[in-house]
Amino acid sequence: MIDLFDTWKTGIDRSLRAYIGEKQAELAAINEWGRDVCERLIDFSARGKMIRGGLIVAGCDMFGGSTDDTTYQAAAAMELLQSSFLIHDDIMDRDELRRGSPTLFRQYGLLGGERSIADADHFGASQAICAGDVAFFFAFDLLSRLDLPPERHGKVLGIANSAVIETCVAQMQDVYLGSLSAPAPVGEQDVLQVYHYKTGRYTFTLPLQIGAVMAGADTQVLPPLAALGEVLGLIFQIKDDELGLFGDEKQIGKPVGSDIQEGKKTIFYVYLREALEKSGTAEMGRLFGAAATPDAVARVRELVESLGVRERVTRKIDELARRAREQIASLPGAGEDGRTLLTALLDYNLGRAR
Amino acid sequence: MIDLFDTWKTGIDRSLRAYIGEKQAELAAINEWGRDVCERLIDFSARGKMIRGGLIVAGCDMFGGSTDDTTYQAAAAMELLQSSFLIHDDIMDRDELRRGSPTLFRQYGLLGGERSIADADHFGASQAICAGDVAFFFAFDLLSRLDLPPERHGKVLGIANSAVIETCVAQMQDVYLGSLSAPAPVGEQDVLQVYHYKTGRYTFTLPLQIGAVMAGADTQVLPPLAALGEVLGLIFQIKDDELGLFGDEKQIGKPVGSDIQEGKKTIFYVYLREALEKSGTAEMGRLFGAAATPDAVARVRELVESLGVRERVTRKIDELARRAREQIASLPGAGEDGRTLLTALLDYNLGRAR
Repeated sequence: MIDLFDTWKTGIDRSLRAYIGEKQAELAAINEWGRDVCERLIDFSARGKMIRGGLIVAGCDMFGGSTDDTTYQAAAAMELLQSSFLIHDDIMDRDELRRGSPTLFRQYGLLGGERSIADADHFGASQAICAGDVAFFFAFDLLSRLDLPPERHGKVLGIANSAVIETCVAQMQDVYLGSLSAPAPVGEQDVLQVYHYKTGRYTFTLPLQIGAVMAGADTQVLPPLAALGEVLGLIFQIKDDELGLFGDEKQIGKPVGSDIQEGKKTIFYVYLREALEKSGTAEMGRLFGAAATPDAVARVRELVESLGVRERVTRKIDELARRAREQIASLPGAGEDGRTLLTALLDYNLGRAR
Repeated sequence: MIDLFDTWKTGIDRSLRAYIGEKQAELAAINEWGRDVCERLIDFSARGKMIRGGLIVAGCDMFGGSTDDTTYQAAAAMELLQSSFLIHDDIMDRDELRRGSPTLFRQYGLLGGERSIADADHFGASQAICAGDVAFFFAFDLLSRLDLPPERHGKVLGIANSAVIETCVAQMQDVYLGSLSAPAPVGEQDVLQVYHYKTGRYTFTLPLQIGAVMAGADTQVLPPLAALGEVLGLIFQIKDDELGLFGDEKQIGKPVGSDIQEGKKTIFYVYLREALEKSGTAEMGRLFGAAATPDAVARVRELVESLGVRERVTRKIDELARRAREQIASLPGAGEDGRTLLTALLDYNLGRAR
């Protein structure tokens, strides 16, 4: 699976550089930021795992489409969408490190400092809002230009537009939940609902469906593909939460425990809160968010293990993985190769370390 | 002209409400922010002058197109684009008042305060970044759905995508110039370049060209339309600067002099800086930006009058207006009615008080 993604990544990377390179030539003529933002977006996008773009190629391939330049352009658009969301999310989450380098708002903030701008942090956030907007527009531009038959093209645009709108609304809820001080009673369903839209529909369903539509698959495959995408998304996001707490900093490209400092409402927050409540300990407020003690990360890890929270998370993942295997087995139209690919994707998802 | 814009506004408003109403029904099912953001976007968009949307209708009409539901959908998309840009710009400019009400980031900040969120200001900015993104996606969704012949549709999307990308890059320069402390040597060309992209191409050229393409006008009208749009845009923006300094707070919907406090690099900044330099007075640093004295606005108005800056601005506007009249007279394909409409638009632009 990793090898397959690497092959796709090469094609997506080429497509990204071709498009942004073309825009850079135009935008460099406007002002220095035109050239600059293109460089930063290429660099930022190229450092991603490109899972979402890869899933467009996978979806197309799996439903018998030929993967050509148009497929890779759609995949590049997907990666640009992802860059935009990350650039804006990092401002909201105050994340300073992403993909092993300073986040965009930090990059611009540092630049502001070098140029002696009085409020360099605000300058950084402002330029990053713009850079995220530019990446969104690049993505829509690429999607609008896809060389597809009109009906298919309309469907691709419709799927993409609906998904990104829903992602945004889920992000608003994520920001809201994240802003509530521990031990705010945020339940499993609240968190899974956010994951459903932010990760299931957006990260998995959207690219798989776009790939299927581009391949000319029957529209009846779209609902079961959505059902599968949502389960894969939950697994992916819960694994992300786990890596954020137990992963290797170098591999995940951001500080371990940053979710805790930011007061993020992850599945670990929900389960740990329930476990602590059951055991009668009033410790949540000291562990999450701005009020977290310096050794909060170590303490959360300790409690997550000793109170059976990690085990509960593992059980949840196992249950979701079982569901995904059933869905893959009964997915219409994907063929044997497609099912093998989806199983490999699931296994990659279950075993990933970054 | 005002009456004509009011007629268009009614149609655009209806189209906006129909689209957002449809999305609201879907998004309310996700979480409370789905319903909430739709309400705020309708309210915010409906309070605009709707000049940009109106220009799509005008452009279509002027080149012999029939203005139907599709025209008004494109116009509604244009207004949603404008809302998104304003929502994001207000965060960058820290503008608390817009269209006579709190800006979106302030609205969400106030809501955060009501809900006892610890960092309500950051919560407000975060939700407003998302709300702006939602409005962008709404706009692209509406544009993607336009019921147009494929070739014409592709052109409309291409024009819109190029223009919004350029607008963003110009906004980055605007933010950068605004972050330089007075008396930073920002020249007339620096400022006019920003106006060219942010106001000329985006506010005038973009909607007029979309209208023309939707009407099926010959593509040879697009370059002269762009040339005219750019001059109309410069006039519009310079009038905006004038209203920001000498206008009526109630009519313009924001505090008079806010450009000065924000250190905005307007045409008044450039001319005043040159005039003060000539007269050997080192007063700029005390008049603009965070270091501005409390009576800076009154002092700037006084100096702008006494040093002939206002007169220079008026001469600049007169020169641009002459150019616009020549361009209107020689615009191919617009017909006599079209030329009358454009002249009325120019006169409205020259005389507007809000």
